[in-house]
Amino acid sequence: MKTADAKAGLVQLRERLQQVNDIERAAAVLSWDQATYMPPGGAAARGRQMAVLGSLAHERFTDPVVGTLLDALMPWAEGCSADDDDAALVRVARRKYERSVRVPNSLVAELSAHQAASYDAWTRARPANDFAAVRPLLEKTVDLSRRLAECFAPYEHVMDPLIDMYDYGMRVSSVSRVFADLRTQLTPLVDAVAAQGEIDDSFLKQRFAEKRQWDFGVVVVKKLGYDFERGRQDKTHHPFCTTFSIGDVRITTRFNEHDLGDGLFSTMHEAGHAMYEQGIDARFEGTPLAEGTSAGVHESQSRLWENVIGRSREFWEFYYPKLQRKFGRELRDVSLEQFHRAINKVRRSLIRVDADELTYNLHVILRFDLERQMLEGTLAAKDLPEAWNARYASDLGVTPQDDRDGCLQDVHWFGGIVGGSFQGYTLGNVLSAMFYRTALNAHPEIPEQVRRGRFSTLHRWLVKNIYRHGSKYTAPELIRCVTGGDLDVGPYVSYLRGKYTDLYGIP
Amino acid sequence: MKTADAKAGLVQLRERLQQVNDIERAAAVLSWDQATYMPPGGAAARGRQMAVLGSLAHERFTDPVVGTLLDALMPWAEGCSADDDDAALVRVARRKYERSVRVPNSLVAELSAHQAASYDAWTRARPANDFAAVRPLLEKTVDLSRRLAECFAPYEHVMDPLIDMYDYGMRVSSVSRVFADLRTQLTPLVDAVAAQGEIDDSFLKQRFAEKRQWDFGVVVVKKLGYDFERGRQDKTHHPFCTTFSIGDVRITTRFNEHDLGDGLFSTMHEAGHAMYEQGIDARFEGTPLAEGTSAGVHESQSRLWENVIGRSREFWEFYYPKLQRKFGRELRDVSLEQFHRAINKVRRSLIRVDADELTYNLHVILRFDLERQMLEGTLAAKDLPEAWNARYASDLGVTPQDDRDGCLQDVHWFGGIVGGSFQGYTLGNVLSAMFYRTALNAHPEIPEQVRRGRFSTLHRWLVKNIYRHGSKYTAPELIRCVTGGDLDVGPYVSYLRGKYTDLYGIP
Repeated sequence: MKTADAKAGLVQLRERLQQVNDIERAAAVLSWDQATYMPPGGAAARGRQMAVLGSLAHERFTDPVVGTLLDALMPWAEGCSADDDDAALVRVARRKYERSVRVPNSLVAELSAHQAASYDAWTRARPANDFAAVRPLLEKTVDLSRRLAECFAPYEHVMDPLIDMYDYGMRVSSVSRVFADLRTQLTPLVDAVAAQGEIDDSFLKQRFAEKRQWDFGVVVVKKLGYDFERGRQDKTHHPFCTTFSIGDVRITTRFNEHDLGDGLFSTMHEAGHAMYEQGIDARFEGTPLAEGTSAGVHESQSRLWENVIGRSREFWEFYYPKLQRKFGRELRDVSLEQFHRAINKVRRSLIRVDADELTYNLHVILRFDLERQMLEGTLAAKDLPEAWNARYASDLGVTPQDDRDGCLQDVHWFGGIVGGSFQGYTLGNVLSAMFYRTALNAHPEIPEQVRRGRFSTLHRWLVKNIYRHGSKYTAPELIRCVTGGDLDVGPYVSYLRGKYTDLYGIP
Repeated sequence: MKTADAKAGLVQLRERLQQVNDIERAAAVLSWDQATYMPPGGAAARGRQMAVLGSLAHERFTDPVVGTLLDALMPWAEGCSADDDDAALVRVARRKYERSVRVPNSLVAELSAHQAASYDAWTRARPANDFAAVRPLLEKTVDLSRRLAECFAPYEHVMDPLIDMYDYGMRVSSVSRVFADLRTQLTPLVDAVAAQGEIDDSFLKQRFAEKRQWDFGVVVVKKLGYDFERGRQDKTHHPFCTTFSIGDVRITTRFNEHDLGDGLFSTMHEAGHAMYEQGIDARFEGTPLAEGTSAGVHESQSRLWENVIGRSREFWEFYYPKLQRKFGRELRDVSLEQFHRAINKVRRSLIRVDADELTYNLHVILRFDLERQMLEGTLAAKDLPEAWNARYASDLGVTPQDDRDGCLQDVHWFGGIVGGSFQGYTLGNVLSAMFYRTALNAHPEIPEQVRRGRFSTLHRWLVKNIYRHGSKYTAPELIRCVTGGDLDVGPYVSYLRGKYTDLYGIP
């Protein structure tokens, strides 16, 4: 294909992709409104409106015209250099297109009906502690997940195509190796920490007025680099980040007046996601390049800001006096030392979403292993509770009293598919340390700046090296490009080891 | 067409209409968000997203498939009784369809580009008092408006097709007759009121804390019948009402801390619009029947609640003590009598949107006459300022010092088309009195109930006779069906005469 032809094809492709993107982002606005401000009476129509937009976007995107354009452009794109924006657009659009057209409409419909039924049953089964009620549904979900993976055959492992949907370019083989490595190194550290006795964090459970929590959080995330001219924050039951355009990336948060950490760290977490999306090159607006490149890389940014920065000693050296001023009565007698230890308290517990930074990964790794076994057929759905409890006992030293706090706790397997949606959390943690170490190598002054409430060096480095690229590079490409190496638990383990041996006074 | 065929056709038609409606309502959500919460950075993408949804809805609706379905169903619909819901759906959809397909895409595009340019010029010309800058644009708007009307030839008057877009079934001939009648009767009343000297309303201009205004307004509109389970209120620069579904009808309001009336009456006004839409029969959801039937009937509901009820003596007998408790310091020394007179103060002024209930119509009627003359070609755009000022002098006894407060004050002619968008305001006032008189005939106890803060009898009567029908009947059909007669200024003039001779002590 000559360059002139490629240019003409690109113009057409961009136009079509932009329209699809506009419809998808419009659906995101409806979804945001549903979670934030919609009155109860709006629910029925809203579901329908979002479904219509979803199917319109799908219909426009899977139009054979798009396939023809992409087919014609691929040889040209493959001849371009790896950092050519237009070639990346063609590659990423092509990948999305394949993902959309390879799955037959009948399977999409079957999945979607089954997911709704399964989710509905789960919302009742969890509070009733009734695994038997969802077991046959889970069996079918595993079956459907396998059939979904089948659409992308051949593959190395049946879970690989499912992982691709969230973390393109990662494989069961590589993730398993990394996770096994991490588990081996984390378990003794968790044991050592547990042997040190409990940290007192009771003062975090006093009453902290919501309005002041909100104000403090806003000041912090503004300082981190979240731009309120191109975003806003609202309250929802479950915090999230959503993108309507590069100029409008919103976060939501929630507060617990009896747990100071809840709202504050969730605000920083979502702001981390949002800074990634706000930092994408404006030239990618309206294209599939205008989003974070993978679940893992996205999570690396929420975790970097929430944990690596937000739970660091340096950060609180600057902010703790301010927080104390905000909550004079509640924190007057609490030292920086006590506060910093409390927000980093480790506890071997049953619930993933309440877990601390250190044990969190053990929750994720065991889910990844169990879903892999279910997909491989070496673990039957009926045996899940037993396998689950055994892993909690071995990995975390705790055993759920019932399935409600055991294998029924997460929605993922019951409202979606089995496979692919968990690994990103821990990949994110691993990557946050890899990226931060690389940033420190380039700018050793960052911790000193954080101590003075300055985050712009780090933020600029992240924009330049990660954010601006959007989905231009796959996660493995980006990791190599930024850190010079491949996925590696080294920096993360050494970060955790340093932090927790220090905090817990482990020799 | 046999009934079975009609049923099958209706199923297909409903499905298509519902999809179009879903897209249109999704666009309304985006527009609401734009006016309420969107950060500045979202503007560019938002405009594009709304345009894409607009053109998708138009494309889906004007699909020849829809025309074929409607053609096949029309003979069946014409054979049905006048109150058959399905037949009404076919008629109304057919009318909307004609309106959409008769205008060539080239004219739509030309109009839309011109409107954007004209609006943009007007936003600069008004503050600069520079009529010359928009005069050529206005000339073109008149020309385009005529060409738009031409698409619907034959017609009785060139403005009739334009009126149809807002007040279907009204004609220049009938509206002009009614307006001339109203003007003849109002002018001497306005003169008589003006001769009585000014009412003191200075106490309304103290500082009234916004939060308390908001709270009071919410309590009031809830009591009137606006359902917050199926709606909500937010703040915007210009108040409006918008519908996402019958279960989600939202209003917005604004406050002036130095004018108590502003926010309060605008809240009641929008709640009136919203109660109409909330009261539509749920079976019409997702169809073109699920909206108010005309601009005039819609305005009759906002005006009924804002003025006929909201500025009545009975209403404030109940609410004034509560308002006084809310604003103890500000209203302590103001009697109910003084307050009621102040919120009904008449002033012959230059600006329509600031006008009182009585003189408001004179502002509207002169605009209607002038736009008619421009379309007829008896008034050239260049002569508009002179004609405008002459009418203000003769009808309102005041003369604008400049065009900024004269013919440049309203956006209608500068951002839209010339013709059709003004008559609804005064038709609404006339209808509010006709409907209210009919309600009183059926329920003479209403004023006594209002005096006790009870509005359910009136609200239920409106739901039963007006709201639930949505667009099932045209405005002229509805008026006849509800009042037993045709559009008639009698009840409105007698309402105004009674109210203002009393308030101003005119013999």
